[in-house]
Amino acid sequence: MAELVIVTYDWVPEVPRGYVRDLRLRWALEEAGLPYRVESVPFDERGAEHFAHQPFGQVPWLREGGVSIFESGACLLHIARKSEKLMPRDPAGEARTLQWTIAALNSIEMVTVPWWFLEMSGAKDNHLTGWLESRLAHMESILKEREWLAADRFTVADLLMADVLRIEKIRSFGDRPATESYVRRITKRPAFKKAYADQLAHFAAADLSNTRAANS
Amino acid sequence: MAELVIVTYDWVPEVPRGYVRDLRLRWALEEAGLPYRVESVPFDERGAEHFAHQPFGQVPWLREGGVSIFESGACLLHIARKSEKLMPRDPAGEARTLQWTIAALNSIEMVTVPWWFLEMSGAKDNHLTGWLESRLAHMESILKEREWLAADRFTVADLLMADVLRIEKIRSFGDRPATESYVRRITKRPAFKKAYADQLAHFAAADLSNTRAANS
Repeated sequence: MAELVIVTYDWVPEVPRGYVRDLRLRWALEEAGLPYRVESVPFDERGAEHFAHQPFGQVPWLREGGVSIFESGACLLHIARKSEKLMPRDPAGEARTLQWTIAALNSIEMVTVPWWFLEMSGAKDNHLTGWLESRLAHMESILKEREWLAADRFTVADLLMADVLRIEKIRSFGDRPATESYVRRITKRPAFKKAYADQLAHFAAADLSNTRAANS
Repeated sequence: MAELVIVTYDWVPEVPRGYVRDLRLRWALEEAGLPYRVESVPFDERGAEHFAHQPFGQVPWLREGGVSIFESGACLLHIARKSEKLMPRDPAGEARTLQWTIAALNSIEMVTVPWWFLEMSGAKDNHLTGWLESRLAHMESILKEREWLAADRFTVADLLMADVLRIEKIRSFGDRPATESYVRRITKRPAFKKAYADQLAHFAAADLSNTRAANS
């Protein structure tokens, strides 16, 4: 198997640290026990080379031999097919994992991210609040009844859903005990903790090298 | 292979007709040349049985033997794996198809749908407009340079991206000739036209049977 390389920014400001989406890929590869390297591209200057790999000027992308793949959700599904730890191999288990992975992206994150964006933009009335409340209430009903989304165990669907739901602004909006317990349980996993710590260390190292450069 | 059944509403109001997402599944199955049936569930009364298949109370879902799968994006990927017409089988072609399918859901539709929702809700300033403009401009640059997103031919990524971009409110917002030409080219495909006509006929039949019931 060709080497797996996660490409992310060399540096980001404080606020998004711990939330940049290379974390999803690190986490998945840690869960799967697959070796990988992390490479950096400049946060400040995103040239044609960057857009050739990620046409919206974002990160991450995943490189495997001559193949490059962007969109964290697509990278996760690509990785999941390499490891039964992330996706069951029986057709029903695979279908359920796929549907909940897409639900995290297209039914939940499609509401949480724009809602958060409006909150940050200082809009007076956030017209997405009703929609957000409804989607989060549905998730709460689901998580009241089961420990995992797609199978009787952790899958990539839980990884992604927990990553979408762990945003502080979402956790502190309303009271959803089953969701909170789900997010806590899943972010306690050693693979998440390692991915999170590694991302913080990656950006902290850039701070240090920038300071050195500025002082030299 | 077990029979493929698309489940959608028995009826919807005029406005969403031609846009209900069972169209994506009909279209994909027409492209793939796979036989399928369409079944209805009540639009007006969505009970526990509905939520057991689609936990957000929406449609469509796809049934294949004992397996049921919701989220139109997940259904499309599930169908695409049955037909090379929708997804190339070489690793690079498959990765590119996957990344653009997810990009349609998570980089474009994640902005177009909430933006449209705000427009409809009568918000005075639509704070998502800048974000929408930026994403659509990136897509325009990409579509200026290529005919198809993921390979040198039509794939399920084009099906989904064109379905996301064909919304009238998005097409008439700004001037993006390459995008417009892409949407026109793709929605001229016989499989799209059949799926579209079949969805309109499905809901029109419900009108007729309601009128009959009301008059009897």
